[in-house]
Amino acid sequence: MKKTPEDSKSESPNAPRTAGRHSRRSFLAATTVGAMLPGIVSAQAPHELGAPMRPYGARSPFEKAVVREKTMADELSTTGSSLAPLQDLYGTITPSSLHYVRIHSGVPAINPAKHELMIHGLVERPLMFNLSDLMRLPAVSRIQFLECSGNSQHEYLQQDSTTPQRAAGLVSCSEWSGVLLSTLLNEVGVKPEAQWVLAEGADASRLARSVPLEKAMDDVIVAYAQNGEAVRPEQGFPLRLVVPGWEGNISVKWLHRLELLDQPAMTRDEAAYYTDLLPDGKARHFAFVMEAKSLVTRPAGGQRLPTPGLYEITGLAWSGRARVTAVEVSVDGGHTWNKTALQQPNQLHSLVRFRMPWNWDGREAVIGSRCIDESGYIQPERAQLLAVRGRAAAHHYNGIVWWRLRPSGELVHA
Amino acid sequence: MKKTPEDSKSESPNAPRTAGRHSRRSFLAATTVGAMLPGIVSAQAPHELGAPMRPYGARSPFEKAVVREKTMADELSTTGSSLAPLQDLYGTITPSSLHYVRIHSGVPAINPAKHELMIHGLVERPLMFNLSDLMRLPAVSRIQFLECSGNSQHEYLQQDSTTPQRAAGLVSCSEWSGVLLSTLLNEVGVKPEAQWVLAEGADASRLARSVPLEKAMDDVIVAYAQNGEAVRPEQGFPLRLVVPGWEGNISVKWLHRLELLDQPAMTRDEAAYYTDLLPDGKARHFAFVMEAKSLVTRPAGGQRLPTPGLYEITGLAWSGRARVTAVEVSVDGGHTWNKTALQQPNQLHSLVRFRMPWNWDGREAVIGSRCIDESGYIQPERAQLLAVRGRAAAHHYNGIVWWRLRPSGELVHA
Repeated sequence: MKKTPEDSKSESPNAPRTAGRHSRRSFLAATTVGAMLPGIVSAQAPHELGAPMRPYGARSPFEKAVVREKTMADELSTTGSSLAPLQDLYGTITPSSLHYVRIHSGVPAINPAKHELMIHGLVERPLMFNLSDLMRLPAVSRIQFLECSGNSQHEYLQQDSTTPQRAAGLVSCSEWSGVLLSTLLNEVGVKPEAQWVLAEGADASRLARSVPLEKAMDDVIVAYAQNGEAVRPEQGFPLRLVVPGWEGNISVKWLHRLELLDQPAMTRDEAAYYTDLLPDGKARHFAFVMEAKSLVTRPAGGQRLPTPGLYEITGLAWSGRARVTAVEVSVDGGHTWNKTALQQPNQLHSLVRFRMPWNWDGREAVIGSRCIDESGYIQPERAQLLAVRGRAAAHHYNGIVWWRLRPSGELVHA
Repeated sequence: MKKTPEDSKSESPNAPRTAGRHSRRSFLAATTVGAMLPGIVSAQAPHELGAPMRPYGARSPFEKAVVREKTMADELSTTGSSLAPLQDLYGTITPSSLHYVRIHSGVPAINPAKHELMIHGLVERPLMFNLSDLMRLPAVSRIQFLECSGNSQHEYLQQDSTTPQRAAGLVSCSEWSGVLLSTLLNEVGVKPEAQWVLAEGADASRLARSVPLEKAMDDVIVAYAQNGEAVRPEQGFPLRLVVPGWEGNISVKWLHRLELLDQPAMTRDEAAYYTDLLPDGKARHFAFVMEAKSLVTRPAGGQRLPTPGLYEITGLAWSGRARVTAVEVSVDGGHTWNKTALQQPNQLHSLVRFRMPWNWDGREAVIGSRCIDESGYIQPERAQLLAVRGRAAAHHYNGIVWWRLRPSGELVHA
């Protein structure tokens, strides 16, 4: 609600004000009627001394409702996942405290002074690296998304994705810093017969995944920092493999061992789990790349628009395959599509924020977005995806998510 | 220290290992002698279930020494500043909890549901905006640095800058999200005679600064979010003006009032404070732009290199005037300069991370960096700066900072 701070004796706006408000430049025109103040108002502010500075700051207590939500978690919250509150995020960086979490045996408490990374197997010189070693090596920092391959999996069964958080909250984006894995592999000397790198985490479940050598030598990072400070415990402190554009599970947390192999290790996490049964009875595994996907986060399910008028439609898009080249938004359930503005710089493997101003006329609307990447891939409708993957699949869901805006202003999953 | 995890019966490396280690690709060659293990070692990891997920994550307890440091603060820590720990930061994003702070009357506890922004003065339609209004308007997100104009001020007197934090810790960088000020000014309709915008904060000291209209209509943001979540209380929750490239003080925190004026308001904070007495007796005020500056953060004062060998020289650079085009590093006190790699994308008004691998031969070295921007400006030596500004100045210090590396490995401010 917007109010005029100065005198307006009548409820009806005077001529020049009306003209100004309904000009092309006036975004809030439709929402201001009757919101003017009856008299002069001055800005309010406290006269008391505020709180002291802190050595390590915290967010406002008024923000405490903005939290991750658990899904599929055991009673102890040591196995399962928790979803980032996408509807409450701005820009492209996910605050580390709100980055989605997927854990299998709790968050280990690792003393970084005692943590070492062993690299062995089909190498010339097996070596151990501690944190100090790694920090001496040439480093990189890159803003990259991570998405759990199980993100949005309930959409296969058309279960309710009531909010953006529940629809697709297992995706987040950080500035990751560390050493390129290729730098370390050059140190140890990869033998010609090596084709895969097994990465193992130091959690109690020893989560382990096999990475093809070609990817390992390309853009994979052994990360010790996230968003400017040490990687957070829930994200793998003190070391995490970051495998850009690929399913989150392969970005092994609490990384302590890399073994060069001539074939994939076929670990539990790539053979029994993180695979999908296709309609023809075959299993789809090593489905590494997270394909183009997007989601409108505002206005979206669980929210309510107070009045007709101007809103910004905004959300997040990403693609593990190629740079996002466009995000289109529809407000009529996919009959027509509109171009959106993409936040710049739009980097490969980063979340991309899209925005489009929209004037809601008060009638029912069905709002959704689709992501298009440089490879030409277009985010599919749910039916298109299911035709290929079938209904037994539980991973790599990237269908379009629709929100129904009712004339009451209420928004629900469509 | 790096160790080989597998068998090596002798302390002297065998022939192929030595060859490999001293090849051009082996970065750690000089540091590994005598660090091999006498037998097979396997990676260690806990067998106990770890800690649960949390709704809002926290950093590792092992990181608790990484904190902001107060300087010039009153006993209550309600007036003064606190410095970001630059030597412990990675990449370009400053964690919001470690963003530098400068406050004049404590941190106000503002309820965002009651906070409003008044825009009045020389406007056609004075208006009040609450947070919900602002969030409906077209938004932008940009990664921008802020630097207090008093950053490094003790360098004018050559007082000790023992660490990067103390040398230049009043600079930080965030992804800021909000509405362009030009959008709001178009809403209220700026009268032709208006030339300045007074911005006032809702802290008890009512910090206020005058912004020229041209800048206000260009790239200034009324920000409600920082690094993906609400602006932190110490940074102005729930609203902060972000004036890219200009002295931090003008990016008014807890923003609650904007007044359009035909001349600057000459507030306390732009007349009595945040001005400098020049050698000719004149006062330098409205010195808005933060000029090109850089700092080596590792290896740097307060640190110790354990052995000769390879290190990455890294640090941060920025310029309020133009894009950073190059950062050069010298290890001989400025006799010769070397090119460095700049983290990409290198955006206007963002911190820029520079990196250069360097093989320390164990002899004394004097390490420093200089920033060059697209305008052709080169960060000056201290003597060059003092020749212009004199010794009574206390703001806008951007001279080169030198670190002396002693043969012992100790680093001190030079």
